[in-house]
Amino acid sequence: MTISAAVQSSTGGGDLLPSREARLAYRSGKAGSTAGVAKGFVQGNLAILPEKFAGSFHRFCQLNPKPCPIIGMSDVGDPRIPSLGLDLDIRTDVPRYRVWRDGEVIEEPTDVKAHWRDDLVAFVLGCSFSFEEALLAEGLPIRHIEHDIRVPMYRTNVACQSAGPFAGPMVVSMRPFKPAQAIRAVQITTRFPSVHGAPVHLGHPHSIGIKDIAKPDYGDPVPVEADEIPVFWACGVTPQAVIAAAKVPFAITHAPGLMLVTDLKNRDLAVL
Amino acid sequence: MTISAAVQSSTGGGDLLPSREARLAYRSGKAGSTAGVAKGFVQGNLAILPEKFAGSFHRFCQLNPKPCPIIGMSDVGDPRIPSLGLDLDIRTDVPRYRVWRDGEVIEEPTDVKAHWRDDLVAFVLGCSFSFEEALLAEGLPIRHIEHDIRVPMYRTNVACQSAGPFAGPMVVSMRPFKPAQAIRAVQITTRFPSVHGAPVHLGHPHSIGIKDIAKPDYGDPVPVEADEIPVFWACGVTPQAVIAAAKVPFAITHAPGLMLVTDLKNRDLAVL
Repeated sequence: MTISAAVQSSTGGGDLLPSREARLAYRSGKAGSTAGVAKGFVQGNLAILPEKFAGSFHRFCQLNPKPCPIIGMSDVGDPRIPSLGLDLDIRTDVPRYRVWRDGEVIEEPTDVKAHWRDDLVAFVLGCSFSFEEALLAEGLPIRHIEHDIRVPMYRTNVACQSAGPFAGPMVVSMRPFKPAQAIRAVQITTRFPSVHGAPVHLGHPHSIGIKDIAKPDYGDPVPVEADEIPVFWACGVTPQAVIAAAKVPFAITHAPGLMLVTDLKNRDLAVL
Repeated sequence: MTISAAVQSSTGGGDLLPSREARLAYRSGKAGSTAGVAKGFVQGNLAILPEKFAGSFHRFCQLNPKPCPIIGMSDVGDPRIPSLGLDLDIRTDVPRYRVWRDGEVIEEPTDVKAHWRDDLVAFVLGCSFSFEEALLAEGLPIRHIEHDIRVPMYRTNVACQSAGPFAGPMVVSMRPFKPAQAIRAVQITTRFPSVHGAPVHLGHPHSIGIKDIAKPDYGDPVPVEADEIPVFWACGVTPQAVIAAAKVPFAITHAPGLMLVTDLKNRDLAVL
């Protein structure tokens, strides 16, 4: 039985998992934001680096688990990550990639087969879509989702622990909540350490180097009402910013918002 | 074997539990704040009511578990609460009591043997000393403890659910923290629902009807620095305020800060 047939069979003979269905569509060239795709399934940030830099990057993630929670890794040169999907092919299954040379994006292809090398290591890192699903399930409103825009993200003055060439500030995402909701949001996201976990900050943006909450460094601004508190989570844009700053000769990431859809279930990431 | 001998024996033959030692001292007339007494042991707020009002008060606690978490109750007319201490006598073991008639304190004796009646029911409610111990154990500084003053407490505009004659606003206590500490404090106190649990509010005092954070309704003011967030927990003063407001013909409570010391361990209250 091929791996593909095994996965097919494991889903009960015929029906595809929505996550696998999404990956197959992306594999055949479809692109577009994965927000709301395959609800209930974990999506991940992608970073692919040559083995020469993979050790340092792995250590960077280990040292900075809140912005860089590893949920899957490939073997050197192997495009498969069976723990995230038996048939998953990291060269083709992300809707759109960014190919980096010396810290610059040189291409945004829908597959990276032409760029694959046998010294590459793929890292998949947890993403806020998972905890947002948990917040929504508990009835907490999420402003940027209500407005159908991207979450606002900010570079902070909080330095990540550095490792080899990888260093830089933590990037955070912000969601405004009323105080009682903010407390509930801390509780809910604490249950999900592998997708950024509890917030890293709330209430005093200037304390972490954010000068103007209305001017995010990435994503779109959202209003914070007078009776609300801005709540900040470590963000998966951090590793991408750090890879850019390190100006490594070669790297591949996902394009922002176009994530890897895995066969893991968000609910299975809850630690309690 | 008498109950007293059984407790004695259960402690390993000779050594008194520090909690029991404290109760015996209070029983023999000693009075004074129980802050820092019998570290590690649960202390409780006390409310004693005639059976006629006990049903409504019990329902009030049930409806408002954050300010009124019940950790023990006596049978009608029975001064013992064996679940909190095998030899515990609720008429004598609190350092100082308040005796209430029609909503007024008429006496603050060190025992209430002369006031005991066979229709009285005693309620013991969780107290913030327990979660403060947990916060300190995790390295969080507590401002009013550092200053050796009482925690600031405030009447809010948040109405408790009413039950019979018992109604009124929730009273909250406030501890200022830096944002990351506030997040940690939410996590830690969430583990202790029977001693007020997670905060009920943070960051916007005016949203819950607190006009001036420097002017608490009970306790002492503490400074909140510019980079800090005031964090508010439901407070065990709430039931005492509600009993006063209800002007029930007769009630007994502890005197503020002079709590019932029980044989329960704070660590055993953690739900996770």
